[in-house]
Amino acid sequence: MTEAKKHIYEESSQYRHWRFSPSELWELRQSCNSKTIQRVREYIMEEQDVQDIDFITADEQVKLCRYYEQQLQTICAYLKLPDVCMATAVIYTKRFFLRNSIMDYHPKDILLTCLFLSTKSEGERMSIDEFGKNLQIPNTEMILKLEFIVSQGLRFEYLIHHPYRAAYGHYLDIQRVFHKNGELDMSLLKDTYDRVKDVIGKILLTDLPLIYQPAQLAVAAFIIAGKNNGFDIKVKEYLVQRLDKDLVDTLYTMTILMDEVLEESQQVPLELAQGIDKRLQSCRNPLKNPESKL
Amino acid sequence: MTEAKKHIYEESSQYRHWRFSPSELWELRQSCNSKTIQRVREYIMEEQDVQDIDFITADEQVKLCRYYEQQLQTICAYLKLPDVCMATAVIYTKRFFLRNSIMDYHPKDILLTCLFLSTKSEGERMSIDEFGKNLQIPNTEMILKLEFIVSQGLRFEYLIHHPYRAAYGHYLDIQRVFHKNGELDMSLLKDTYDRVKDVIGKILLTDLPLIYQPAQLAVAAFIIAGKNNGFDIKVKEYLVQRLDKDLVDTLYTMTILMDEVLEESQQVPLELAQGIDKRLQSCRNPLKNPESKL
Repeated sequence: MTEAKKHIYEESSQYRHWRFSPSELWELRQSCNSKTIQRVREYIMEEQDVQDIDFITADEQVKLCRYYEQQLQTICAYLKLPDVCMATAVIYTKRFFLRNSIMDYHPKDILLTCLFLSTKSEGERMSIDEFGKNLQIPNTEMILKLEFIVSQGLRFEYLIHHPYRAAYGHYLDIQRVFHKNGELDMSLLKDTYDRVKDVIGKILLTDLPLIYQPAQLAVAAFIIAGKNNGFDIKVKEYLVQRLDKDLVDTLYTMTILMDEVLEESQQVPLELAQGIDKRLQSCRNPLKNPESKL
Repeated sequence: MTEAKKHIYEESSQYRHWRFSPSELWELRQSCNSKTIQRVREYIMEEQDVQDIDFITADEQVKLCRYYEQQLQTICAYLKLPDVCMATAVIYTKRFFLRNSIMDYHPKDILLTCLFLSTKSEGERMSIDEFGKNLQIPNTEMILKLEFIVSQGLRFEYLIHHPYRAAYGHYLDIQRVFHKNGELDMSLLKDTYDRVKDVIGKILLTDLPLIYQPAQLAVAAFIIAGKNNGFDIKVKEYLVQRLDKDLVDTLYTMTILMDEVLEESQQVPLELAQGIDKRLQSCRNPLKNPESKL
């Protein structure tokens, strides 16, 4: 019997430890949230004489984190960091908050540490002083203090596979496939590829990268991008030539489901984030809050 | 450029007209429900002097229909009709109620007509008298009266592709693949195949057959069945040998999502169905209700 070839991706920690079903994600977050509430309730009652504490829900945590992930994308664009560096920082934040609560660690602190770690693992290395200067953070102590805690949350698995590389491969390959016929509208392909990168940026803000594989996400991004600028017929033609017919069908069905997730998950507006953030002040773990008396 | 081979399935009306995304299904049913309410409200107010009418929601319709689809499975087992005949009747009912309301047509009438139509299209032909006798229905007039209306609802597209054929193909093929090594526990395979048919039976009660393709559902059924009786390693080995590696990965991801739908969608219990059914009595379209004065 022939041994099936293993893809490099299958050997990765991402494949082995960081793929979930939507309900697994829900359960992880839910259980982390209720355990935190139990723990934090005691500490708060030790500190103050309050009975009714308005705790943050797991769902609100996801929303507030998404708001900060959006901020992270803005920061990275401002610092002109490459897409993979931004993407890695976003995924670090997502992974960290699967088993950690914002009532223990505020996302705005965690995101900076995630970004600092990401500049290291994506080869955009800068010193902590440079990092602080670039981001106009007067005190970078917190970032260094959280480095170990975040690393623990990531299980020290720093290498992240993104859909960008697969998408770039398809971008080149489409040119090769259609080149001999002179049938390719190059500017339309370029426009599609720009849209593909935008779609991946949106995918990064959802749970999709925790559910699907990078190669699946890359194809989905091409299907979605093509649908929006009329390149869809070429995309289909290309996929049918390059992949197994059944795989193409299955990827199209899958994309229907992903596209729906993208449409449903709107940007989290500032007011919503501010509301959650305000409530978070009253239910943070006093043991981890620098402003607490404990 | 080579023309891509078209599968027979792609030429089918099922592929062209009866595949939806979950949100498309939701919109179809929602819009059908609200249009019906608008229409029926007038008729009811013409007949009686009532203001507050407790209409059935689109979601309740899905639940009541599912209850009757379960009944249909019981009837077919009792009549010893083959699986495909049952499956076709269930899918006919599902398709009919995508664009028709239970406030116009009661599912218990529609399901009998669907079953009668299904015996014809699946080659289990019996006369209407035989049908009535087998099912102990004294008056079969309603069935014949609804035949045209149901056919319209089905757009006269009677041929339905089911996962059963693909599943049987895999059942034979697994034997071929592992035969030469004498490595196959035949009784475990038979047990798996029985479970596969059970899983398909459960899939039929959900929206999955309106979203995924039969070949995708067949593989998913094998993955799910294998997971439950320890045959999963063989199933994976088989799929990896027979299909493209990426397709196998994608099918596994897809199955995670399907499995969740299956777990969420419980059987609709009698009491729930009775509750909806009772409320349905007060908001049926009087024009189509034989018991109405209009």
